[in-house]
Amino acid sequence: MARLIVHGRAPYNAEPPLARLRAAFRTAAEDFYVRSHGDLPAIDAAAYRLRVAGGGAPLALSLDDLRARFPVVTVTATLQCAGNRRGDLRAVAPVTGDPWEAGAIGTADWTGVRLADVLRAAGAGEGGVNRDGSRDGSPDDRHVAFESRDTVHETGRPYGVSIPLAKALAPETVLAWAMNGAPLLPEHGFPLRAVVPGYAGVRSPKWLDAVTVQDRPSDNPIQAADYRLYPADVDPEGAAPALGLIIDGMPLNSAICEPARGAVLRPGPARLRGYAVCGDRPVARVDVSGDGGRSWVQARLEAGAPHAWTFWSADLDLPAGACELAVRAWDAAGQTQPASPEAVWNRKGYLNTAWHRVAVRVEA
Amino acid sequence: MARLIVHGRAPYNAEPPLARLRAAFRTAAEDFYVRSHGDLPAIDAAAYRLRVAGGGAPLALSLDDLRARFPVVTVTATLQCAGNRRGDLRAVAPVTGDPWEAGAIGTADWTGVRLADVLRAAGAGEGGVNRDGSRDGSPDDRHVAFESRDTVHETGRPYGVSIPLAKALAPETVLAWAMNGAPLLPEHGFPLRAVVPGYAGVRSPKWLDAVTVQDRPSDNPIQAADYRLYPADVDPEGAAPALGLIIDGMPLNSAICEPARGAVLRPGPARLRGYAVCGDRPVARVDVSGDGGRSWVQARLEAGAPHAWTFWSADLDLPAGACELAVRAWDAAGQTQPASPEAVWNRKGYLNTAWHRVAVRVEA
Repeated sequence: MARLIVHGRAPYNAEPPLARLRAAFRTAAEDFYVRSHGDLPAIDAAAYRLRVAGGGAPLALSLDDLRARFPVVTVTATLQCAGNRRGDLRAVAPVTGDPWEAGAIGTADWTGVRLADVLRAAGAGEGGVNRDGSRDGSPDDRHVAFESRDTVHETGRPYGVSIPLAKALAPETVLAWAMNGAPLLPEHGFPLRAVVPGYAGVRSPKWLDAVTVQDRPSDNPIQAADYRLYPADVDPEGAAPALGLIIDGMPLNSAICEPARGAVLRPGPARLRGYAVCGDRPVARVDVSGDGGRSWVQARLEAGAPHAWTFWSADLDLPAGACELAVRAWDAAGQTQPASPEAVWNRKGYLNTAWHRVAVRVEA
Repeated sequence: MARLIVHGRAPYNAEPPLARLRAAFRTAAEDFYVRSHGDLPAIDAAAYRLRVAGGGAPLALSLDDLRARFPVVTVTATLQCAGNRRGDLRAVAPVTGDPWEAGAIGTADWTGVRLADVLRAAGAGEGGVNRDGSRDGSPDDRHVAFESRDTVHETGRPYGVSIPLAKALAPETVLAWAMNGAPLLPEHGFPLRAVVPGYAGVRSPKWLDAVTVQDRPSDNPIQAADYRLYPADVDPEGAAPALGLIIDGMPLNSAICEPARGAVLRPGPARLRGYAVCGDRPVARVDVSGDGGRSWVQARLEAGAPHAWTFWSADLDLPAGACELAVRAWDAAGQTQPASPEAVWNRKGYLNTAWHRVAVRVEA
């Protein structure tokens, strides 16, 4: 844990320095950001049972049961906190929550079983099949609620969220016991967590206790009230939750990981490296600027994976003196990021998609 | 056609005034923008046959064949030109192509048959099934090429484009003979057109002649070279097409339809009305500003349809004098539009997603 920048000890919240984050496409577990809402629960893996209520007979599945009853799959996926890059919003106005830099994100191979397989075994049926077993073509609007073993400090209740059934049945959504080929570390959800690629990290609960198919979203405060994108003119404190958008799928974003802010560079070509990411569309292009966004050149994109970030690099000739580097990405639908944090500021500091800017100096 | 603002007579290109566009959720055929690349082909509906090559025996289907052999479906969908709102990019630097305002968009009920059903009848098989009939889980990377009866003025060749097979098999993709319950007007593709919801209008060819399942995208210049989003520093004239992104799915966008630019308003609450649209994600929020984007209030959203635009309205108290109205939308992933046309300018003037700004005056 000493490798991380620690925002809080209890709950434990920490992120890696950006150069370390950019070191490998698959983030080492020890370098992977940690977002907690309570204390680390101690769970005996041998006695562990996942409770599943899908409409048929309830299940209580050990880790061995999961391995034996369902195909084991590995999904390479990026997880990202909804508050990633919140720190930069403080330049506009105060925000609540930890001031994450651009490191509240990471990518790993997640090994486990498909949630869809477990839900089917529990009687949840196919998406589009009605609760009475009929199929009339109407979308299945049920939800899958997760409850975890950790107790949220703010409420004293277990951590709980939900996702739409359609996303729960998607092939990329898994219950994982391993990260990059090794058992989950305690802070990453040992012995079992959900991994919901493309969605905000909050929807991928750790220390998973129970999975329930139900007619409505979870009524847990984490789901019902937190993690919503409110308009800038709404104070979320006491506001009706309906005024905020539920944060599920994550928007297009990008960051410069190297050089670091405040770096002093030698004259000559400077190598910039970073990531771009989008919840459900491919990243199609990344532009970098050495003059604060007045001119742009295209970065080189490295081969990625469907549910993972895209690594990029670029070489820029920078003039001597102070420079503002910037990055922006474009997705496959031709969407690009807004320029300024003013345009996306919100009191809870979620989804900062403004161009990532890094001030450096070039000195001979 | 007298109802439209005409950008060109041959080929015929025209769009409706924005107040008329906003008059109805389903755009009247006479108010629907027209984008042509050649002359209007005259087609005898009785003799018409659609040629389909899907891998099995080739088909030649009359309109009666289509009606008799496949389920008839109606899809409510918005079509939009990739150059919609191009006119506003001219304030940054010159662009090629017609200076569309925000009216190169429209929504209709499209009645016809699912392209998927026709392709299956032609032996194209399911997505994910390999050409040898095996299924190894790899994505099906084939394409569906369309060729039309019109001759493109610039090249002398028939109009031709293609879409990925997966999109061709999607339930919303149809071959339509009717628009809002009436046969297609000649300028909208009589007797049969493709409608590919969420994609740029260029991929929904009119006067459809042939449909072919093939290993590669169409080599027609419309597909191979045109309708690409090039970076601002690339001159598309003579550039390698690979430097531009193929424009398929359309990005988040929005426009103020009323009041019109230059309108003189009375003091007191002003009613703003417009649309927001996104290719493949729901529009989640629309903000309007009476002060050029310094402050925002939320617009009311009207009920829409999955593949159609979202209508919105808002009431603003405007001060006397000159005002700049602005609109921006947010999609369900928390993505929003860039503020300035400088950020999205490209020589061909595609995908102007900058905030739509409308200057008005308030006078007592």
